[in-house]
Amino acid sequence: MVKESNVDVLIIGAGPAGLMAANWFARTGTSFRIVDKRGSKIFAGQADGLQCRTLEVFQSFGFADRALKEANHMLEISFWEPDGKGGLYRSARLADSIPGISRFQQVVLHQGRIESWFLDAIRKWSGGRASVERSKLPLRLDIDEEKVEDPNAYPVSVLLKHLDENESMPEQFGSNVANGLFRSFEGDQDKYYQNTKDLDDDSLELVHAKYVMGCDGAHSWVRKQIGVEMEGESTDYVWGVLDSVPITDFPDIRNRCAIHSLDSGSIMVIPREQGLVRLYIQLRETPRDPATKTESEMGKNEGKALEKGRVDRSKITPEVILDNARKILHPYKLDITDVKWYTAYQIGQRVSPKFEKFQRVFISGDACHTHSPKAGQGMNVSMMDTFNLAWKLAYVSKGLASRDILKTYEDERLDVARALIAFDHKFSRLFSGKPALPGAIKSEGVDLDEFHAFFEKGNEFASGTVVDYDDSVLIDKSSGKPVPHATDKEVTLTISPLATNVIIGRRFDSAQVVNQSDAHPWYLTDRMLSDGRWRIVNFAGDFKNVPELNKRLIWLGDYLAEDRSFIKKYTPPGAKVDSVIEVLTVHASPRVDVEWDDFPLAFRPRDCAGRMDYWKIYADDNSYHEGHGHAYEKYGIAKDVGAYVVVRPDGYVSMVEPLGEEGLSKIGEFFGKFLLEQKVPPRTMFEEIETYGADSYGRPLLAM
Amino acid sequence: MVKESNVDVLIIGAGPAGLMAANWFARTGTSFRIVDKRGSKIFAGQADGLQCRTLEVFQSFGFADRALKEANHMLEISFWEPDGKGGLYRSARLADSIPGISRFQQVVLHQGRIESWFLDAIRKWSGGRASVERSKLPLRLDIDEEKVEDPNAYPVSVLLKHLDENESMPEQFGSNVANGLFRSFEGDQDKYYQNTKDLDDDSLELVHAKYVMGCDGAHSWVRKQIGVEMEGESTDYVWGVLDSVPITDFPDIRNRCAIHSLDSGSIMVIPREQGLVRLYIQLRETPRDPATKTESEMGKNEGKALEKGRVDRSKITPEVILDNARKILHPYKLDITDVKWYTAYQIGQRVSPKFEKFQRVFISGDACHTHSPKAGQGMNVSMMDTFNLAWKLAYVSKGLASRDILKTYEDERLDVARALIAFDHKFSRLFSGKPALPGAIKSEGVDLDEFHAFFEKGNEFASGTVVDYDDSVLIDKSSGKPVPHATDKEVTLTISPLATNVIIGRRFDSAQVVNQSDAHPWYLTDRMLSDGRWRIVNFAGDFKNVPELNKRLIWLGDYLAEDRSFIKKYTPPGAKVDSVIEVLTVHASPRVDVEWDDFPLAFRPRDCAGRMDYWKIYADDNSYHEGHGHAYEKYGIAKDVGAYVVVRPDGYVSMVEPLGEEGLSKIGEFFGKFLLEQKVPPRTMFEEIETYGADSYGRPLLAM
Repeated sequence: MVKESNVDVLIIGAGPAGLMAANWFARTGTSFRIVDKRGSKIFAGQADGLQCRTLEVFQSFGFADRALKEANHMLEISFWEPDGKGGLYRSARLADSIPGISRFQQVVLHQGRIESWFLDAIRKWSGGRASVERSKLPLRLDIDEEKVEDPNAYPVSVLLKHLDENESMPEQFGSNVANGLFRSFEGDQDKYYQNTKDLDDDSLELVHAKYVMGCDGAHSWVRKQIGVEMEGESTDYVWGVLDSVPITDFPDIRNRCAIHSLDSGSIMVIPREQGLVRLYIQLRETPRDPATKTESEMGKNEGKALEKGRVDRSKITPEVILDNARKILHPYKLDITDVKWYTAYQIGQRVSPKFEKFQRVFISGDACHTHSPKAGQGMNVSMMDTFNLAWKLAYVSKGLASRDILKTYEDERLDVARALIAFDHKFSRLFSGKPALPGAIKSEGVDLDEFHAFFEKGNEFASGTVVDYDDSVLIDKSSGKPVPHATDKEVTLTISPLATNVIIGRRFDSAQVVNQSDAHPWYLTDRMLSDGRWRIVNFAGDFKNVPELNKRLIWLGDYLAEDRSFIKKYTPPGAKVDSVIEVLTVHASPRVDVEWDDFPLAFRPRDCAGRMDYWKIYADDNSYHEGHGHAYEKYGIAKDVGAYVVVRPDGYVSMVEPLGEEGLSKIGEFFGKFLLEQKVPPRTMFEEIETYGADSYGRPLLAM
Repeated sequence: MVKESNVDVLIIGAGPAGLMAANWFARTGTSFRIVDKRGSKIFAGQADGLQCRTLEVFQSFGFADRALKEANHMLEISFWEPDGKGGLYRSARLADSIPGISRFQQVVLHQGRIESWFLDAIRKWSGGRASVERSKLPLRLDIDEEKVEDPNAYPVSVLLKHLDENESMPEQFGSNVANGLFRSFEGDQDKYYQNTKDLDDDSLELVHAKYVMGCDGAHSWVRKQIGVEMEGESTDYVWGVLDSVPITDFPDIRNRCAIHSLDSGSIMVIPREQGLVRLYIQLRETPRDPATKTESEMGKNEGKALEKGRVDRSKITPEVILDNARKILHPYKLDITDVKWYTAYQIGQRVSPKFEKFQRVFISGDACHTHSPKAGQGMNVSMMDTFNLAWKLAYVSKGLASRDILKTYEDERLDVARALIAFDHKFSRLFSGKPALPGAIKSEGVDLDEFHAFFEKGNEFASGTVVDYDDSVLIDKSSGKPVPHATDKEVTLTISPLATNVIIGRRFDSAQVVNQSDAHPWYLTDRMLSDGRWRIVNFAGDFKNVPELNKRLIWLGDYLAEDRSFIKKYTPPGAKVDSVIEVLTVHASPRVDVEWDDFPLAFRPRDCAGRMDYWKIYADDNSYHEGHGHAYEKYGIAKDVGAYVVVRPDGYVSMVEPLGEEGLSKIGEFFGKFLLEQKVPPRTMFEEIETYGADSYGRPLLAM
């Protein structure tokens, strides 16, 4: 008999996308398992860029500080071009992360470190009870179609095989240096599955899951099981990647650089942690084998056969890549030491037309979209896919929300994937094309001015901060009005006149506010951590000086204390009153004019031990040491009007409503469309870690 | 035969003072051991405040971020006084850390966490090879006086006994709750030593040390061995300490508060991490036993018998303390939950007249100075004692400097201890005295206006940033001129007109500068870590626009490249050129006008693998995301003049000299007085951890 077991969510693949999901489930006390076919995590190379929005999300899980401390901060980009005299010159410099777009700027370090922060976080949130199950290969996936609409059913079954050590070791091509030229596991499943009868039952397990997440990369086995094929194309551009310490007289080696040579190809310089530099190097001269179809694009461009001969990646060595780099960088000299990793890829862009089946099996990350790596998007967009999905699965599997919210995953993320593919399509062609010389006819090559302009605009997209989710059960765009973007005519924003810089559908940006009880300045989003809770931010205005606002504050306090409060309705009996929807207050009166007991108790509730929450009320006021955050100004909220802003557990703005009964009633209706009335105590996978205080990093929410 | 061994430095006592020393030795690859008689580190209570300067020092060792993340930031202080109608009112609020005095503000959390950061750092710097040896009690200390002037001798021998588990467990009085009412180990040494013949040789070890550091607390055994007695006095004021979560309607419980009741005594409120609050509560009504002399003042006031009956500490319970607190806080209500720790102490101030013997045995921390804890000074000053001493011992024991520098320890730290004692003497009496009512004759009680004024001024002292070391072999005050302090007539500062805000003898303050190579903004002191190196900060001025400054830059580059450079003279052959004295350049030209090869190679040297140091040259210029540091303005240096600033390994300013040959020659003379010419490769306890890059946190300096 094969062993059988139940779990709410089974994650297949423990790369960044899978780990982000696992982290969410650990944080919210959701029943989950995460398996990976490989025997160990990676230790070098792979993806390396962390964009602004990704750092904001890491911050919301409590480990952005590790990124900021360990990674290289990449702040400036230089453009280098042919000078017409056989050399190169720096034609422009600009800030790499657009100033003001986020409190963070992009940083770079290798993927293995990033994965280890997730592993630490998963261990912490689960109290040490959850971890990645390695060397486990899925052999079969079945969906019981009759049960897919039953929220309590486990309609997906996955047969797992526990591999032995040799089977789970990826083989590399070519070199003793760590590299990205892995042998794929593709086809292993068939081999094992056809021989299931020969297998030792002890190595097999049949897992029954409510939901399955395929985070298993470009060759996604899960994607194949749900019958989805990638769509897209490949180019003939081949690039190498080399992580090393360069020894060079090129002056900008510690800047991000886009270097176009006259006719030897292009280089992107990505300075890294510990003095390393990643060079993306266009390979004009590569060993090719027209008869063989091998993998390419970091193993991502499988699918249709190409017309042209593909690169024989097994023959690409650090020396081949370095030779190309030297030609591009001429007349500057280049040697390398401390070679840590290398790979090569052929540029292409592909996207899945579907991201799920029956809202029961979902795919994310490279399984849905592959493209070239130079803009540092792949890992970031992959993590944001599961950051979008996993909290929804947590709500549904816990019975807090209806299954309707799961449809929003594909709607929201397929748009992002398509925008990414379009961006990369243009970016990679501008980068790989031969440049037009200054003064030459533009059609004779890539117009480098166009390249700069696209690069600069692309930096906004690449930051991840401008993702804008459409109207849905989770985003009420009717609470705002369409407004054209100030500089980009193609973009329309949805904005309420009550909060003219809060864009409905985009992430809630941060502004500094000051804690009423202890004068501590905080980024407001640091009080809105990714712990599974919805927030209603009560921008109460200058209630000390505007009597009408004071009335509304008192009214809200009274309403929240009543049994009819919709917040209580959607909170399981016995759970803390703020464990599904938290009300945070940001007022605009001078902090020292306000007394603590000006606020109804509902804004500063006591827990079952009688301990008061001193960390829910903030002033938009000066701090002693960090200046004034001018939060109302930053959000575009009038101090004599105020507003309620509803923010999703993943930090996106759902709606903006006026203070008072009417606005709150609309918010209640919004939640009523997907939150379910709670009549029994909450279900949680992990016990609550006992904490109290400003640092709620230890408290798994949705979990009590 | 008793086992014998040699070590350069033996540290006795693994509290904060001892751990700070061990951390320095691990960081600098110095031969050391650290022993403690107790079997485990503490887990609750004890000291809890970290002052600005302490955080600066933690930052220089790479772990201030842990303090900032885990601790409560105590930013505001409120004063509460009798309102004349039987109640209390808030008479004033002010910033707790004086704005602008440091980049950090004081934080609070319990001592056990702080010790664990040191333990982690010691493990890291030593590559896992150094750790605290617990349950080791020193029985005998002998100094071979004939050898004390021989730098290579091991003239101090210490007999250590390895205790078994029961022997090393401190007993507590009275309660199941963790508390500070420990049984002392005092007298155990005599008991064991008299019975040495009965002891199993296996439990004994005779350690021969070049230097011994006594960091063994108020009852210091080391202090007794060198025949030093504390001097000072005790008062009749008794205070209790209680760590708990208060349940109260007192509105400022998350602020630091100084509360004077009319006639029930005073309270200091110290809000802590995880929602805890420490209350220092004056005990008007305490169980006393006139016949018994017990310990007091956290066990610190041993010594002369007092006239009056001392508090019977074994009878003090959380309930006794809480009863007193309720009377003081009336009419506000107070209950408590989550009681983590408590203690009681009788206020007194004592100081050692001597801090060392023969510059071979040194005492630090509570062994030298004890006082009341409310200003959060004890642990901080203790750590600063050994932060001052240990790098000097590292230099001398490694043969890099002459023994002359060791005299500066007592000179520098005894002044600090005496100032601390005077401060605490006044502070504790103002706090413990009965307040005069508003409008009453001042002589009838403590004038609360005087209390506020003293408190505010005391905050500057308490921050630890204004410690000013006297002229010595390590501080050349002749490079500046005496200047009266702007607001405090009692204070004279030593300042060079070249750098009018750099105070010679005080710590080098931080200002933001921008890395020339990658545009990264840094606090300059974050590039001047506590790794054992001296720094010459070459404020090169606006060298692109002032030809004379460019000449001086080129001249310095040429000089540093020459074999006659004093930096090379004092650096061991084979060690990196910057491993004893590092030259950092901060120029004042617009960063983008400067090219990387404008700088001679000596300012951006290559290591033996050819890797360039990109992290030694900075611009005082705007950054892309963090504004302009205006460093020249902050330091009071003219951009068309510049200056050399010499900074000690512990961050104190030794001298300021003009750019060019004359100034540099004075700096050479300064170093010539105590640094020793190096003719053999360096000696190190730990192998170098291979690192390269901006993050030199992994590289133990003085160690290669």
